[in-house]
Amino acid sequence: MPLKTPEQYMESLRDGRVIYWEGERIDDITTHPLFQVPLALMRSDYDYHDPELGALRRYTTEDGSEAHRVFQIPRSEADLNTRVELMRGAMSIGTAVSSVFMALMSVKDDVGRVNPMYAKNIERIYQYCRDNDLRGAEVITDPKGDRRRRANEQDDPDLYVRIVERRADGIVVRGAKLHITAASVVHELVVMPTKAMKEIEADYAVSFSIPVNTPGVKIINRSFAPAELNSFDYPASAHHSCPEGFVVFDDVFVPWDRVFLAGEMQLAGTLARSLGLWERTGGVVESVKISELFVGLGQLVTEMQGKDHDPIAQNSIAELITYAEMLRMGLDYACRHYETSHSGMVYPNVLAINAAKYYYAANFHQTVRYLHDLGGGLTMTLPLEADLRNPESGHYMRKYLHTKAGVDVEARMRVHNLIRDLTADAYGGWQFVVALQAGGGLAAQRSMMNRTYPMARAKARALAAAGVKPA
Amino acid sequence: MPLKTPEQYMESLRDGRVIYWEGERIDDITTHPLFQVPLALMRSDYDYHDPELGALRRYTTEDGSEAHRVFQIPRSEADLNTRVELMRGAMSIGTAVSSVFMALMSVKDDVGRVNPMYAKNIERIYQYCRDNDLRGAEVITDPKGDRRRRANEQDDPDLYVRIVERRADGIVVRGAKLHITAASVVHELVVMPTKAMKEIEADYAVSFSIPVNTPGVKIINRSFAPAELNSFDYPASAHHSCPEGFVVFDDVFVPWDRVFLAGEMQLAGTLARSLGLWERTGGVVESVKISELFVGLGQLVTEMQGKDHDPIAQNSIAELITYAEMLRMGLDYACRHYETSHSGMVYPNVLAINAAKYYYAANFHQTVRYLHDLGGGLTMTLPLEADLRNPESGHYMRKYLHTKAGVDVEARMRVHNLIRDLTADAYGGWQFVVALQAGGGLAAQRSMMNRTYPMARAKARALAAAGVKPA
Amino acid sequence: MPLKTPEQYMESLRDGRVIYWEGERIDDITTHPLFQVPLALMRSDYDYHDPELGALRRYTTEDGSEAHRVFQIPRSEADLNTRVELMRGAMSIGTAVSSVFMALMSVKDDVGRVNPMYAKNIERIYQYCRDNDLRGAEVITDPKGDRRRRANEQDDPDLYVRIVERRADGIVVRGAKLHITAASVVHELVVMPTKAMKEIEADYAVSFSIPVNTPGVKIINRSFAPAELNSFDYPASAHHSCPEGFVVFDDVFVPWDRVFLAGEMQLAGTLARSLGLWERTGGVVESVKISELFVGLGQLVTEMQGKDHDPIAQNSIAELITYAEMLRMGLDYACRHYETSHSGMVYPNVLAINAAKYYYAANFHQTVRYLHDLGGGLTMTLPLEADLRNPESGHYMRKYLHTKAGVDVEARMRVHNLIRDLTADAYGGWQFVVALQAGGGLAAQRSMMNRTYPMARAKARALAAAGVKPA
Amino acid sequence: MPLKTPEQYMESLRDGRVIYWEGERIDDITTHPLFQVPLALMRSDYDYHDPELGALRRYTTEDGSEAHRVFQIPRSEADLNTRVELMRGAMSIGTAVSSVFMALMSVKDDVGRVNPMYAKNIERIYQYCRDNDLRGAEVITDPKGDRRRRANEQDDPDLYVRIVERRADGIVVRGAKLHITAASVVHELVVMPTKAMKEIEADYAVSFSIPVNTPGVKIINRSFAPAELNSFDYPASAHHSCPEGFVVFDDVFVPWDRVFLAGEMQLAGTLARSLGLWERTGGVVESVKISELFVGLGQLVTEMQGKDHDPIAQNSIAELITYAEMLRMGLDYACRHYETSHSGMVYPNVLAINAAKYYYAANFHQTVRYLHDLGGGLTMTLPLEADLRNPESGHYMRKYLHTKAGVDVEARMRVHNLIRDLTADAYGGWQFVVALQAGGGLAAQRSMMNRTYPMARAKARALAAAGVKPA
Repeated sequence: MPLKTPEQYMESLRDGRVIYWEGERIDDITTHPLFQVPLALMRSDYDYHDPELGALRRYTTEDGSEAHRVFQIPRSEADLNTRVELMRGAMSIGTAVSSVFMALMSVKDDVGRVNPMYAKNIERIYQYCRDNDLRGAEVITDPKGDRRRRANEQDDPDLYVRIVERRADGIVVRGAKLHITAASVVHELVVMPTKAMKEIEADYAVSFSIPVNTPGVKIINRSFAPAELNSFDYPASAHHSCPEGFVVFDDVFVPWDRVFLAGEMQLAGTLARSLGLWERTGGVVESVKISELFVGLGQLVTEMQGKDHDPIAQNSIAELITYAEMLRMGLDYACRHYETSHSGMVYPNVLAINAAKYYYAANFHQTVRYLHDLGGGLTMTLPLEADLRNPESGHYMRKYLHTKAGVDVEARMRVHNLIRDLTADAYGGWQFVVALQAGGGLAAQRSMMNRTYPMARAKARALAAAGVKPA
Repeated sequence: MPLKTPEQYMESLRDGRVIYWEGERIDDITTHPLFQVPLALMRSDYDYHDPELGALRRYTTEDGSEAHRVFQIPRSEADLNTRVELMRGAMSIGTAVSSVFMALMSVKDDVGRVNPMYAKNIERIYQYCRDNDLRGAEVITDPKGDRRRRANEQDDPDLYVRIVERRADGIVVRGAKLHITAASVVHELVVMPTKAMKEIEADYAVSFSIPVNTPGVKIINRSFAPAELNSFDYPASAHHSCPEGFVVFDDVFVPWDRVFLAGEMQLAGTLARSLGLWERTGGVVESVKISELFVGLGQLVTEMQGKDHDPIAQNSIAELITYAEMLRMGLDYACRHYETSHSGMVYPNVLAINAAKYYYAANFHQTVRYLHDLGGGLTMTLPLEADLRNPESGHYMRKYLHTKAGVDVEARMRVHNLIRDLTADAYGGWQFVVALQAGGGLAAQRSMMNRTYPMARAKARALAAAGVKPA
Repeated sequence: MPLKTPEQYMESLRDGRVIYWEGERIDDITTHPLFQVPLALMRSDYDYHDPELGALRRYTTEDGSEAHRVFQIPRSEADLNTRVELMRGAMSIGTAVSSVFMALMSVKDDVGRVNPMYAKNIERIYQYCRDNDLRGAEVITDPKGDRRRRANEQDDPDLYVRIVERRADGIVVRGAKLHITAASVVHELVVMPTKAMKEIEADYAVSFSIPVNTPGVKIINRSFAPAELNSFDYPASAHHSCPEGFVVFDDVFVPWDRVFLAGEMQLAGTLARSLGLWERTGGVVESVKISELFVGLGQLVTEMQGKDHDPIAQNSIAELITYAEMLRMGLDYACRHYETSHSGMVYPNVLAINAAKYYYAANFHQTVRYLHDLGGGLTMTLPLEADLRNPESGHYMRKYLHTKAGVDVEARMRVHNLIRDLTADAYGGWQFVVALQAGGGLAAQRSMMNRTYPMARAKARALAAAGVKPA
Repeated sequence: MPLKTPEQYMESLRDGRVIYWEGERIDDITTHPLFQVPLALMRSDYDYHDPELGALRRYTTEDGSEAHRVFQIPRSEADLNTRVELMRGAMSIGTAVSSVFMALMSVKDDVGRVNPMYAKNIERIYQYCRDNDLRGAEVITDPKGDRRRRANEQDDPDLYVRIVERRADGIVVRGAKLHITAASVVHELVVMPTKAMKEIEADYAVSFSIPVNTPGVKIINRSFAPAELNSFDYPASAHHSCPEGFVVFDDVFVPWDRVFLAGEMQLAGTLARSLGLWERTGGVVESVKISELFVGLGQLVTEMQGKDHDPIAQNSIAELITYAEMLRMGLDYACRHYETSHSGMVYPNVLAINAAKYYYAANFHQTVRYLHDLGGGLTMTLPLEADLRNPESGHYMRKYLHTKAGVDVEARMRVHNLIRDLTADAYGGWQFVVALQAGGGLAAQRSMMNRTYPMARAKARALAAAGVKPA
């Protein structure tokens, strides 16, 4: 089947999906104002004929067909670098979550050892989505209720997604999943267990993929962006919002050929962890982009007011550079020192990605402080474009926001607006939380570092340095 | 003249002032949607009969009349504590800026030594505003153009407010001032020089107070809050916004009896610095409030999901407590170890206020990181109240946001909403920048600490400890 | 009995105590080179006739006799301030640990409710030590073995001090205690349980006081200072070392009248926690001293090389000031907002002390970084006094270490030496660890903050701000 | 000429050099106790027949002779990696400073363009030292006197090294240089200007190389290690000390064929900066080593007391891992993305090295805090080996320092000792300062980052993101 056109993508969303937002049930998201920015982004990822990015967006599968490159399983360092390039510049977050298929493929063999049917299902769904140019969401985090209790001990047994019925033709699941980026604008919901499960929690060890319009699926949306924003005042968020979904499974039937796990609790942890690497890789790619923007913005805002020789400003810019460079070097390392699965799939170095992602998350707030220090009060108090366009107020704004020859007032305003939009407004708030929480929060990254660091070597070297002879 | 009623305050704003916002010139701000939240706040400060706060809001002047307590010049530690109590709980930011009159009074004697008329003008304006229950804005920051050049060296001589004409009956001024909180909703614009001035900049050494509706004054507004917000989803910003003004003086005439400085450049620095102490005191009072909120929110969000025994969560809460307690102790110290001017005016300890404000500003971003770590992804992805009220989506939200007995889902949502609103949304962004920039930015506080620290004593003790005998 | 003279103190140490250091058993510590600096310090605390400090060192007891002020139980804010003054300037660490008697007295009533004999023993020992001008050590930390196991589950049951025999006339104890500051140079070892104990650990719930020369007591010493140091090169550590003791109880008999706890495990936690407050108060007093020294040293080293107008240097000094002032304000608050026990004993505010101590400990390393940045390479590479006194090398040192008029080369060297000695040499290393670990480490302070913060109020305010009505 | 043997190296130091230390003029350093540890290290670098490291230490020059690899000019990535391997594991600091010849060679062409004789002198000295297996010190930092004044404005014109006489056969120089690592134990002093010079400072634009025993050269030494230390108690510093030299040039004659710069002030900055890269590369290599040790030590000390499941300990270890991994990735990047000079010399990426070195320096203190938190009080209070070997005290130490099966008490002691030695003792203090100051301090790294960051690209991307069209 050929690649979809942007129009075909839009058409494919008119499939009866049950969508709520701002108190309303929305029958056709393609025409609803709240969805215009996210859909414009999603649509652009189907622009395979863009002269600059089109070639990056597609690849030729082993079957000789063409598919979106998000489906390409890296088999070499070059593939990996191409994927990073795709993530960095040619794919919106709504499409990026289709990396979930890569996560699935990465554990296919492990899953197949327990039940070969699961492996076949993974393979089939992957090919189906790839060949039909569909998108899938990463559906992982359960509501979890009371954190001190296990899934089966909650007041309401549905606080983790669970199998409520096993039938000859499939399973019936009930529960909800939180923080599901792009759930309303993709085609498939790829559901994973949220964590490792004990034997007594076997009904919670469940994984599958179903279309968004499957009966019983309902999605309640939330976004930092209430609607369309002016791109002068909101240079980033006018173009980059994507709704998060609160996804409900109200006794949803899943046929066996879409099930990847149904009770084999020993696999729950494997599937749960499979997503983290790619989510965090996405976080590191984003960190490289945004931290470089911070340097550029910090320098511009400083130069534009003639403060580039101020030692304190130079100091703050150097701090921004350190952050940007350490992240860039971390990503480079992770790709160069890639790892390879038994089946030949290439993926970024796990320890490197986790260390870089943690460094990003743990230092994001403090780094923004340097940018806020450089930006000054105008970051918050700059009047809007509308006031600039009003001839009366605009006249004064142009006069008094002048700083020196070569600095265009509108450019200066846009720079301040981007700083505010990225770090001190609704989108900025989202950035703070996402930098910290995406891919599982600080604790998840720390835990992966503790697990994957070559500790035996470090201990041996420390013992040798301490003068302890090997036993 | 008696205290104004809230209605009289609203009436007093219909005075022909020239106000712009979102591209529109607004003739009557009292009826315009954008001004409803700020004006509700301003109006509440005129509620002198509130059973709880009314008494705190008013005091008896030395003339025996009643006035808003923002005009009370502290003469004792008790007065100072009362003022802090007022700042903490019974006065909005729009009224708080009337502290500018206290700043003026604090330098009245110094100014009078150079020109007795200025001192008389200060006294007169102070009494006039106090007796007519008016509000005044702190009008200080000039656009400044190219920071490497002095005021008189800019491409456009108007980039700092300056005297363009001296007449028998007064002066004519031109220029603009930025970041003027509440400018559109007060009565008087109290203008200060932004910094010390050299002899060649004498025309820029200018200070005065004029009514907002004076011909030639135009105010362009900006706020983080676009309009009225739902108080369930926006528990803080639904009630707390106040516009910042970009204030233009387009050849404004100021009669001599309203002038506090007109060319005596040796006083420019004195006036410029007079505001900082009270602005920073306001910042420290705010810091004590918000940091205590952070502790409460951190603990609530943790308990509500049953994580209160998690060591990492306890660690984050302890960090929030340290921040809150160090700030509270700093404010307490500043008030107890107050300073007294020659004329008997009591004010907070300057070094203490600057140290506490700096500690607040320098550590705000990092402290929020702890709260974001505790809050988790729900801080960003929680659906809106409207979806909770929709019976279909609301049913699922209540079911799946349940955690354990005793935790009300709506209360849980409100707690997450307040975390988001305060730290990860438009108002939160404003908080980040304001914590850093209000009262002059990190550099201004550092500079005041370097100036006011008892360095001679510290050096003597260090030399003694090093074994250096006093010369 | 009258106060001891310094000579009588020295004589009192020749009592047969069993002391090890550097592989040697030392029969008379008063003549051994390793003990000369510590004993000089201890001796100075017996100088009750010092014109400046003598009066501060002694007080009149309720019995009308004179005693060292370390025994004075504060009954008022003034008493508390006097005690802080004593701690700050007139008492060495070796005497300061006698605060252990205050800790005992603070829990006397609680202990007495379980067994009145214990309370009487506490009172008696307190009076005995006070009236005989003796010193006591805080003997608390057990070796603890494997931290995952309780006291009674260790491979060796002696890894926590325990009762091995109960006799008619007393108990026999076995075990060891670590990190016992000044153990070898005091008279009494006041032993406390290291933590709360469970019923099954009853034999480990033991507290008592015995003379250092009691049969079976052995002390192995350690200090950062190997012996006497030159006070030019080591301005601080030449005068301030005090050995830490590894104290062994090899089946030591303790008569009943010296026992404060013997099996009533419900009191173990009470006794264990009683010491923390005074240890941490000592830490905060020390922090105020050392942080002020850091400011003075930072400023001196900067001025002496003519860098006082360098913005980066000013920035670092402002950071040092912030640290010093926040600590000073914290101590001031803790004393002003003192707490009072049922029996009328006054002690510093517990939350304040823990917050300030935590702030001190958590930020000490980073603060030293600022001082190291100011100090430059000379902090490590400055030649010794001996080379200055050698006429050949000394000539060159004087010539090339000159910076400008008014800066004496020797004073400059002493300033660099003090920075190195305090922060970048053996004593400096001790400071880093002690700042962090004294009074129980970061975790202990965090835990006390979590326990003592007025959390109900903070939660109520947060709920009110979130719009949640009280139930 | 063949490679030297260790004995020949020792012999070569008996050349009449003028050396001072601890007030004494030392005639033969090879027999003096203070020099034994440094010379053992230096000697080991001449062990070309070590089965493990010998091959790494030598290489075949383009002339076919064998030389120490420190002289090998990297011409490929492989060469660069070999050099890093050499720096990491097979070369002491005293030999590492011979990298100064590489710095010289890297600017040879630039220098030659101004004066071909200088280039020839550089080439000749390089070959002479390489072929005679000599070592050279990096002699750069002047005393600088009053930092607000230029070299020629100081009270004493000698506060920067300068040319006092120009003769037909050479120049006479006077002045001193500080912080010269290994000056007393090498053969050549390679002198560089400390900074860029203005025209009026032309006499200070001077660079040359002379033997250590040249008449007029005098070296005053300083080290953190007073003499030989026990390697059980001091596992690191017993083996790793190297004296810093305060080097005096008392009217030293330098023949023209050893001069690299004599007045062409436009080259002073080029030479001054040439050293920084290799010094900082050395710092980054050291950082990778020490940070991995920190991880190993942190993990060992935690496991050994059974705390490896403690979440707070795991958190601290993850912080240590992040630091170690970010540094390791930075070094890897710097070598992979190497730069190449016009003459084909390969060197590490300048921006990468500066960013990694800054990250190392700026976070070293805080990182050590995590290790100190893990190490606990025993880091400071552990008794010495001598007490362990004494049967009486040793018995108790073995008994009470036991934690659990599989943990050897001596190994545990050694681990604690290494933590103390590396971070909380005299050597540890040196590490703090060296991490910060080596290669020029934080400001120098920041300045290099500000200079070398691809700012044009970052600004262009920021402008594009802000919506500013390219002009």
